[in-house]
Amino acid sequence: MSSWYTKESSIAVSTRVRLARNLSGIPFPSRMSNEQFEELKQRAKSAICDSNTPFAKNLNFIDMASVPENEINAMVERHIISPEFAKRGGRSAIILSKDESISIMIGEEDHIRIQVILDGLKLEEAYDIAEQIDSLLDSRLHFAFDENLGFLTECPTNLGTGLRASLMLHLPACESSGEIASLSDTVNKIGFTVRGMYGEGSKAGASLYQISNQITLGLSEKNALDNLKSITARIIEKEENLRSSLNKLKVEDMAYRALGVLKNCRIITSNEMMNLLSRIKLGIDMGIIEEKINPIELLISNQRFMLMKKFGEMQPEERDIQRASNLREILQQEV
Amino acid sequence: MSSWYTKESSIAVSTRVRLARNLSGIPFPSRMSNEQFEELKQRAKSAICDSNTPFAKNLNFIDMASVPENEINAMVERHIISPEFAKRGGRSAIILSKDESISIMIGEEDHIRIQVILDGLKLEEAYDIAEQIDSLLDSRLHFAFDENLGFLTECPTNLGTGLRASLMLHLPACESSGEIASLSDTVNKIGFTVRGMYGEGSKAGASLYQISNQITLGLSEKNALDNLKSITARIIEKEENLRSSLNKLKVEDMAYRALGVLKNCRIITSNEMMNLLSRIKLGIDMGIIEEKINPIELLISNQRFMLMKKFGEMQPEERDIQRASNLREILQQEV
Repeated sequence: MSSWYTKESSIAVSTRVRLARNLSGIPFPSRMSNEQFEELKQRAKSAICDSNTPFAKNLNFIDMASVPENEINAMVERHIISPEFAKRGGRSAIILSKDESISIMIGEEDHIRIQVILDGLKLEEAYDIAEQIDSLLDSRLHFAFDENLGFLTECPTNLGTGLRASLMLHLPACESSGEIASLSDTVNKIGFTVRGMYGEGSKAGASLYQISNQITLGLSEKNALDNLKSITARIIEKEENLRSSLNKLKVEDMAYRALGVLKNCRIITSNEMMNLLSRIKLGIDMGIIEEKINPIELLISNQRFMLMKKFGEMQPEERDIQRASNLREILQQEV
Repeated sequence: MSSWYTKESSIAVSTRVRLARNLSGIPFPSRMSNEQFEELKQRAKSAICDSNTPFAKNLNFIDMASVPENEINAMVERHIISPEFAKRGGRSAIILSKDESISIMIGEEDHIRIQVILDGLKLEEAYDIAEQIDSLLDSRLHFAFDENLGFLTECPTNLGTGLRASLMLHLPACESSGEIASLSDTVNKIGFTVRGMYGEGSKAGASLYQISNQITLGLSEKNALDNLKSITARIIEKEENLRSSLNKLKVEDMAYRALGVLKNCRIITSNEMMNLLSRIKLGIDMGIIEEKINPIELLISNQRFMLMKKFGEMQPEERDIQRASNLREILQQEV
């Protein structure tokens, strides 16, 4: 039972599907009273946890008010919750599966956000799981739905299917050849968007990019997923073609230098670590270097809040020292 | 019997003393006939090699015409001969001690250049050896000497003592704090000069600088050496003071990162290697990192021609690959 980022991956690192849903008869979270939030929370909790379905025994209800701030932020770093949800504070709750692949956020922008995150390229699989939870919840909570518009959501950009599907891709060759901007333009024109690894406005550390659908109105879930799948296939093909023209020795040199720095440094920022791990991942995925390490796992588990979750509260410089020490320890053991 | 660069050092890496001498009755090398060069060569050779002195059995006569070009250039890299001497071609010879500390160049700018190079700060010791050879040669060859001017030399800048003494210092803290320019200015004003590690016009790779006397006329050898010694002591003190204010953790981080790169890279230029070895040397010399490696030995033995002497003729890129492979092999064994 381990999270998506602990598993091996190649260009497609992870798949995420989320459905935005709201209950009829309760105002959207931004206009909801505390009593209404309590009602929402209890109804959502019992809909899942008392359902006697296979899901129920693997899912835990967590009131976010009881979660320490570092752990909340560490959940964002693990992509279990959205950055927006992390800022909700007391008026939010989550129903989370043990392997962290399913997270049902209660009190995000919408009443309920069902998220499924899996390793690699698993769009159908992730959507299937999300849909099963959606059906289960709908049968008990009765989501606000309009015959013409579809599911009603707080923000009109989610109206309709309420579906946002995204793929996190590792695109170092596209990035180094300057292809990201034109790729982003092309993708935008057909209703998709390219973002950094931590969503809107975030930078693409480690050459990790999220491709997601923008259109939720006027096309079916299946169409949206099919379109995302085909655009992703083309981006992966582009990345593979660009990789095949890279100088293998230079990739090897870059990857081993990166490994040498990670195994030896005494201070390292998250940004530098991400860039170095990206080079190692490229070397491993191209079959050029053989190392029994998982760059994505190292990348996630050495982020700011993940580190503080493990080692306690730290100032930025202490964190950079602790990160270096943690990386050295793991890499000496694993390699 | 090993060369200066194979020995441990600290800020003072090596000491070099050379005496410029010419025989009466033979024109300076630039105006000498081939017959006159042959005469010079034979007289110098027999003066040393037939002398039945302690020197004689440790010294080998080498006609430079018989030395392959890569080895000649590798001698420059080991500081055994001057870059100018390396360009002399057929009309030059050398009398070299087994540990390469004594090299008597025949047919440099002057007829004879006696050079002694030792590890560390050993000005008197190096001068003593040079003086003994000078006396021995003078007693048999009768050097051109003027009562008022002193020893006569081709270039007026050597006239008088014909002595050039230099110290190679490792000055990373002076360099990183931007002190080299003002230090160079000060030193120039009192008749000394600061140069890169391969002499006039060369860059100071690895933060190695040569401090040498400029004045050979109107002051005794002892005065010149004493002055150099006291200016060197002040530069070393300056470097030590600057080092003590460095952040130890940052020095440790830089040194280990450098080691990590050298142990793992697949391609590396001589310049990058020198910079990385300089960081490692700083870490070792400050007692911050403990590694059983000799950065100066690695630096010299992985120079362009030293590599080609060992592995054969190579194009620049092949050399950078071979250098990386050689460094990996040595560092895996030694560390």
